[in-house]
Amino acid sequence: MKTQIKGNYVVGEAEAVTALYETGGFGRPRDGSLQLRFVEAAYLLSRNKIEIFKSGKELDFDSFIQFAAQQEDFFELKFIVYKDLKERGYYVQSSATDFRVYPRGGKPGKTSAKSYVYVRSERMPIPFSELTALMNEAQNVRKQFILAVVDEESDITFYDVKRADAVGNFEGGMVLPYPEDVKKKTPAKAVLFKERVILADKETADLLYNRAFFGKMMDEERLLLSLPEAQYLAENGVLELYDMDGKALSLEEFSKSASLIDSEFLKKYTIYKELKEKGFVPKTGFKFGTHFRVYRKVDSLDKIPHSEFLLHVVSLEFEFKLPATSGAIRLANSVRKRMIYAADLGSRREYIEFERIKM
Amino acid sequence: MKTQIKGNYVVGEAEAVTALYETGGFGRPRDGSLQLRFVEAAYLLSRNKIEIFKSGKELDFDSFIQFAAQQEDFFELKFIVYKDLKERGYYVQSSATDFRVYPRGGKPGKTSAKSYVYVRSERMPIPFSELTALMNEAQNVRKQFILAVVDEESDITFYDVKRADAVGNFEGGMVLPYPEDVKKKTPAKAVLFKERVILADKETADLLYNRAFFGKMMDEERLLLSLPEAQYLAENGVLELYDMDGKALSLEEFSKSASLIDSEFLKKYTIYKELKEKGFVPKTGFKFGTHFRVYRKVDSLDKIPHSEFLLHVVSLEFEFKLPATSGAIRLANSVRKRMIYAADLGSRREYIEFERIKM
Repeated sequence: MKTQIKGNYVVGEAEAVTALYETGGFGRPRDGSLQLRFVEAAYLLSRNKIEIFKSGKELDFDSFIQFAAQQEDFFELKFIVYKDLKERGYYVQSSATDFRVYPRGGKPGKTSAKSYVYVRSERMPIPFSELTALMNEAQNVRKQFILAVVDEESDITFYDVKRADAVGNFEGGMVLPYPEDVKKKTPAKAVLFKERVILADKETADLLYNRAFFGKMMDEERLLLSLPEAQYLAENGVLELYDMDGKALSLEEFSKSASLIDSEFLKKYTIYKELKEKGFVPKTGFKFGTHFRVYRKVDSLDKIPHSEFLLHVVSLEFEFKLPATSGAIRLANSVRKRMIYAADLGSRREYIEFERIKM
Repeated sequence: MKTQIKGNYVVGEAEAVTALYETGGFGRPRDGSLQLRFVEAAYLLSRNKIEIFKSGKELDFDSFIQFAAQQEDFFELKFIVYKDLKERGYYVQSSATDFRVYPRGGKPGKTSAKSYVYVRSERMPIPFSELTALMNEAQNVRKQFILAVVDEESDITFYDVKRADAVGNFEGGMVLPYPEDVKKKTPAKAVLFKERVILADKETADLLYNRAFFGKMMDEERLLLSLPEAQYLAENGVLELYDMDGKALSLEEFSKSASLIDSEFLKKYTIYKELKEKGFVPKTGFKFGTHFRVYRKVDSLDKIPHSEFLLHVVSLEFEFKLPATSGAIRLANSVRKRMIYAADLGSRREYIEFERIKM
């Protein structure tokens, strides 16, 4: 079937509408003819379904993709993903988002698309704000947001990216992991000892450690607390904080000192605090290379459950470097955890979950 | 038993030599008395084995560690690690390196130390050059190099760090994963198509893909090659490279274009090439967040084995950020691979393996 390159489309006549659109869901009918995007045309050309002419001259596949790659940004990436989706048996519509993919059994004009697929090279970082804007766009029209990343070797990894709201998706059997017994006491004295905090009050240490999974016992009576743990406990009147010279530290002073020790302290603490207030138990994710590992609920130290997700705190200016993101998600999956990125938007916190999926 | 702070030591009299050194391996005898490092003294004090006096005044545990932390860099980190090792039943000697640890059943004066243990906070990045210098120091005297990283929550992760030489440790059943049939042919024409290379010669594509695990088939006759694969094949006379306008690219021109696409190209290619020449099969490690996954041997595409290690290429100026390093090692372990960092030293390449160990 003969088609012509016209502007940004490859255009087929009326017969194409019947043969390609109605049967295969390719292109969009327009004024009695069929407009094919370059990726669709390249795919049909590779399957010998169409011939493509440009100014009266027929183009072979190699010439056409070369032409298309010069005309359209990321043509080659989109072609790799489009072809893969088609070969998996999906109906795919080329659109602004890069693709709309129909559910199995569905097709354009009959069902509505299930997913928006965005195509990226592993070499293109994605700003957090751009990712969330695209995700919101998809979710506003109730589409699944799928990120298709083409790696150096032209393999594709698909990620389902969705909002994992601390209020919404996170709900579950929560308890406030916080011993009321501690709250009723006079605040215990704790000392900022270099990068950590030492609480030398045996009774409070016992309660915090054994009942609420705070810190790590240093010996029989002393508890070592992390900076966010100490800040949180001080804010809740459980601790009074001092420096090594015995000078009392206000919450502001402590938080300032903590920020000097860890430049990410404030950013991490905002999320830590929200998670604690929602009844989660965030602990360091160091062993996993993330800021936190998070437990939904810890009833006792004797049976600490598997932590449920790994959480990395980012800023609005953060850019996802896809190889690193890929590694983080892979690690989370391999230890059966969810991988979540969180950022403080001021009025609220945004939690974004990445899940690797097979299409 | 009474001891005194003298300079950088806590000093015990003759009886201490018998009670602490000869029995427990604590401290170093010197002129009939015993010199204890601050971490040793803190540990003994916490176990009520000694009393510590400073200018005639006895110090309790909290006062002593506060004093020690003000006198000695990273005292608190070293104490956390020292105590942990002691509680695991090891004989530990405090030394410049931070600790020498004796093998189980061995002790100072009887056996020689097995390991040098270096203590770091997760917040302290380690320059690649510093790490290799320390590793060399340990290996020159045949000691195991152990990195003990104390995380935010005062947990310790131990890593065995060792040279994993491409010549030494890497030996094994290697074959040159390179089809001689291809070499005898005239070079095939391949085109640099944006971020990848397309080889449209069916016969060569077949051989390269099916016999040597190069690239990924785009369709029945076209092979997509990564930039390092294309450079390597061109250097070996298998390919002739062209740009999209049909202009021939010299090896230098291709490598320059590749570096514009991927600023790390040259750094990665040096290692890629060495691995290929030693008979390994390096492929992208994108899914694992590293530069390469490496197979020892691939005999056929029908039974591709598990890749054996993940490899990340770094520069001499690289600094290990310990949380990220921890995540990479954890991922490698969880998929049963070794984690190796490689750098080009000019005259040779250095391969460093990190393995998480339990003490």
